[in-house]
Amino acid sequence: MDPLPSWNDGATKEAIISYVQDVTNINSPNFIDVNDRIATFDNDGTLWSEQPVYFQFFFAIDRVKSLAADHPEWKNEQPFKAVLENNMEDLKKQGMKGLIEIIMTTHAGMTTDEFEAIVKNWITTAEHPVKKRKFTEMVFQPMLELLEYLRANEFKTFIVSGGGIEFMRPWTEQVYGIPKDQVVGSSIQTEYDYNNGNPVIKRLAKIDFIDDKEGKPIGINRFIGKKPVFAAGNSDGDLQMLRWTDANEHKSFQLYIHHTDSIREWAYDRKSHIGTFDKGLDEAQEKGWTLVDMERDWKVVYPFEL
Amino acid sequence: MDPLPSWNDGATKEAIISYVQDVTNINSPNFIDVNDRIATFDNDGTLWSEQPVYFQFFFAIDRVKSLAADHPEWKNEQPFKAVLENNMEDLKKQGMKGLIEIIMTTHAGMTTDEFEAIVKNWITTAEHPVKKRKFTEMVFQPMLELLEYLRANEFKTFIVSGGGIEFMRPWTEQVYGIPKDQVVGSSIQTEYDYNNGNPVIKRLAKIDFIDDKEGKPIGINRFIGKKPVFAAGNSDGDLQMLRWTDANEHKSFQLYIHHTDSIREWAYDRKSHIGTFDKGLDEAQEKGWTLVDMERDWKVVYPFEL
Ligand SMILES: [Ca+2]
Ligand SMILES: [Ca+2]
Repeated sequence: MDPLPSWNDGATKEAIISYVQDVTNINSPNFIDVNDRIATFDNDGTLWSEQPVYFQFFFAIDRVKSLAADHPEWKNEQPFKAVLENNMEDLKKQGMKGLIEIIMTTHAGMTTDEFEAIVKNWITTAEHPVKKRKFTEMVFQPMLELLEYLRANEFKTFIVSGGGIEFMRPWTEQVYGIPKDQVVGSSIQTEYDYNNGNPVIKRLAKIDFIDDKEGKPIGINRFIGKKPVFAAGNSDGDLQMLRWTDANEHKSFQLYIHHTDSIREWAYDRKSHIGTFDKGLDEAQEKGWTLVDMERDWKVVYPFEL
Repeated sequence: MDPLPSWNDGATKEAIISYVQDVTNINSPNFIDVNDRIATFDNDGTLWSEQPVYFQFFFAIDRVKSLAADHPEWKNEQPFKAVLENNMEDLKKQGMKGLIEIIMTTHAGMTTDEFEAIVKNWITTAEHPVKKRKFTEMVFQPMLELLEYLRANEFKTFIVSGGGIEFMRPWTEQVYGIPKDQVVGSSIQTEYDYNNGNPVIKRLAKIDFIDDKEGKPIGINRFIGKKPVFAAGNSDGDLQMLRWTDANEHKSFQLYIHHTDSIREWAYDRKSHIGTFDKGLDEAQEKGWTLVDMERDWKVVYPFEL
């Protein structure tokens, strides 16, 4: 039986299968003990789409709109004014400062249980503005098969994403088969409150950790404690994770998704603001890492095309 | 077959077994889905001994002595002078500042790979000064059986310890059957260095996170993302973790180890500096949490008694 039915036959699919067969073959010099079969996956642009902006940003926008009734002053205050007026040009002008204000306003100031309920509600109801699909329908079918294939071969699969750890955890188990404790992501600081015998953890409006670029090997070391043998990403933000995996003493595998399909998904790389893929693309070619050409290698992109 | 052969028959053993049978019985109103079967264990005093001082402190002392040849100035400089002279009274006078200096000198300034090699070498050679046993022989046989019993019932077992995360990870897999990514502990800050194509992570002499008291629910939330349903500890430092577990919407289990055996192990509780068990002991009694009386409940303490 074909373990990767949504992958077209060719060098990419062959490279994946021959790697897995080699390192799980007890008679191979490249055999890897089950305990060391750690596979890490970027999320945005690697397991699901990320255009025209990261999906977590749509979540933040929707939250601002939901909260606006309690904040009449936002009509006249940036960056909220731009969000409420759907004025993307104005919003861009607010820069990183504006973005952080939106993220902190929408992601902090509640308990972790409350935030989980908010995310669960949003993820099951919100729609992507272009594709008119639920965001969790915009995961990549070939990557779901790859996750499953690796797990069938006793790899432990992790997400290592620049996205918010508590934004992902409410749905990764159901959507990707990846339990909460195998999700590594960016985080804000938290505080424990005994709360008269009903303990809660409160989300504070302070950055704790950015799980991107150099943050990815740092996060892998902190949460997993081992170098992965398999890593997949799609942008320059994953380069350090792929290099870290490449430094593994075991035979390792580096997979880079190249978004080349402007019809079924989006086509972008070196000059894109979202998912910039420039240095990583050069290094993948230099080092012979496996590059997925989405248009060529994937029979279908999304599960709803099946 | 008895799943807990080193536990004497009685209320404690019965409470554990009846909890596990209840929550894994699909026909019980208390049934817990496999994904939610999270069990967290403190380490020092819960899975292995911690007297006369935390074993990680013996590691630090041994490191100071190993490094002393390169630091002739330590002969006259506190806190190192006290360590080199085995002068515990003088060492205590150096207080928290002295302790932190010893920890940072011995735990930072190398790569994570180098530190792992140092710990592995120490843990396989060093001996406990009183028991004259390897430290990993001083784990609690009844707790090894409990870990195994929970895993056989599809609980995912985690360590949540005030000890250093990278001090524990090199040996928890072999000793407790707990993989590195299921170890939560205190940490120092780290830095990624590309190192001309041979990337390393460097350990910096700065505290990152203290996984004790309020830090335990914070660490559980950060690393695991779910409230445990089962938690075990032995001191006031575990009280917040046990309360956090008690707040689980599922039926939960709180286990407190009371060190009552001055012959086979050590007897200490309310007034001990190491493993102070005072508020936790009162709260366990008030709330009806399960208290292990080590002398009464454990047929053997260490595996070498078998
Ligand atoms: Ca990405
Ligand atoms: Ca303890």
